[in-house]
Amino acid sequence: MAEELTFPSEWATSLEPRLPPSQPGSSIAPTSRPFVTLTFATSLDSALSLAPGVRTRLSGPASKSMTHYLRSRHDAILIGIGTMLADDPALNCRLAGAASLPRPILVDPTLMWEPRWEDKVLEVQRAGKGLAPYVLCAKQLDEVPSGHRDVLEKHGGKFISCPTSEPGVDGGQRRFSWADILQVLHKENLASVMIEGGGQIINSLLHPSNHQLIDSVIVTIAPVWLGRGSVTVSPDRVQDEHGTAVPAARLSDVSWHPMGEDVVLCGGLQG
Amino acid sequence: MAEELTFPSEWATSLEPRLPPSQPGSSIAPTSRPFVTLTFATSLDSALSLAPGVRTRLSGPASKSMTHYLRSRHDAILIGIGTMLADDPALNCRLAGAASLPRPILVDPTLMWEPRWEDKVLEVQRAGKGLAPYVLCAKQLDEVPSGHRDVLEKHGGKFISCPTSEPGVDGGQRRFSWADILQVLHKENLASVMIEGGGQIINSLLHPSNHQLIDSVIVTIAPVWLGRGSVTVSPDRVQDEHGTAVPAARLSDVSWHPMGEDVVLCGGLQG
Repeated sequence: MAEELTFPSEWATSLEPRLPPSQPGSSIAPTSRPFVTLTFATSLDSALSLAPGVRTRLSGPASKSMTHYLRSRHDAILIGIGTMLADDPALNCRLAGAASLPRPILVDPTLMWEPRWEDKVLEVQRAGKGLAPYVLCAKQLDEVPSGHRDVLEKHGGKFISCPTSEPGVDGGQRRFSWADILQVLHKENLASVMIEGGGQIINSLLHPSNHQLIDSVIVTIAPVWLGRGSVTVSPDRVQDEHGTAVPAARLSDVSWHPMGEDVVLCGGLQG
Repeated sequence: MAEELTFPSEWATSLEPRLPPSQPGSSIAPTSRPFVTLTFATSLDSALSLAPGVRTRLSGPASKSMTHYLRSRHDAILIGIGTMLADDPALNCRLAGAASLPRPILVDPTLMWEPRWEDKVLEVQRAGKGLAPYVLCAKQLDEVPSGHRDVLEKHGGKFISCPTSEPGVDGGQRRFSWADILQVLHKENLASVMIEGGGQIINSLLHPSNHQLIDSVIVTIAPVWLGRGSVTVSPDRVQDEHGTAVPAARLSDVSWHPMGEDVVLCGGLQG
């Protein structure tokens, strides 16, 4: 099992204003959705990885321990199915002395993930070092293969049926709305969620239609260019009322925190 | 005429190790090429502008005065023809108290720029606030229209014929090599050059074949995502000997300097 990590307290202090309250419910009014932190690491050319499904080491050790510190400060961590299948991630918190473990949330509308005992996220659960995922799917629960449910439920996870929007006029796939996803998490008493990726998840949240759902953005930037053809973070084009392209998203209340070779950028999207 | 700019001395001090020696020739051995600084500003999604030919305001006032400070510390500033035609830039130095003016260098192989009295770069020359460009072209000087030469030479600029490589097997356009461009600048007694853009120029310099020609990289990053379809900085894909994609460029000796809402990244490409 991988070693425990530590995160310097001065860095933790500098990130504190960007995080959900550490005493849940103590200082803010009750809300109808969790506190949402969007966080990811990119290259200078905004790439998450060299190619789809290729896990690319971008940021340094400080950034890695920051990720685990951030996980320790959220009730849940959310990823998309692409990241799950590409990375087989543990989705746990390895911070030394962490008080609680975050609940992994997997967005998997069409049930592409088949839970297996050897999946790392289930391995760490059996070792008492993590929690099994809640899987948000677009199917009714009785449409989920019973073998899948058995394996997941034996580890303390479960499938959750999440509402979808109507198919578009193009007959395209049904889609979750972020408001509905957050509603489901709220019902599960998860007061904060750290959304980690991958590219589709991040790009959809950076679109203006979702900015009001995001409380905090924390981006690590590594001093490397991956080059053309990489998987990149860049929201869909946004146009003003005259059809002129305008910036898709601008952070407000910005702060930059150099950490080792990388920099960590914090800001908001609601201002 | 636009106002003078100032750049805080503590920021200037922090950038000093990244710049050419301020006493030319005093502390370094004579070299056969100028000191080369590559500098540009991008969004978080590595965009220079929303669309080709669209001038996009990205970075804040601190970054703007930094650009003029950096210009004051170089003998020459170099841009490509695309930037010239899109922006009609002044290419001068508006730093208060700057000792000398940088020489604009325009890379224009096929002579797309037709110098006119109303071009801003010539206007500022007549006002005593800037120098006229040296235009690097792939033609022999007697092929340059005499009207173009007249206008440019009356302002103290000139056309310079620069060697080109043979056309490729695809019969494509002749191209300058960066080594040849720097050789031309060296012959003109320009001991340092700040390369500012645009996208094609930057991407070609970030390719590994040119890293040994670059002494310093200074990138300003603004906390905004422009969105898909923008003009981006991202070098061509690089593969290892097995055909596997690898990062195209990694900076060494990195430092990050928050300036207002933006961050300035400094590093090298030779280590």
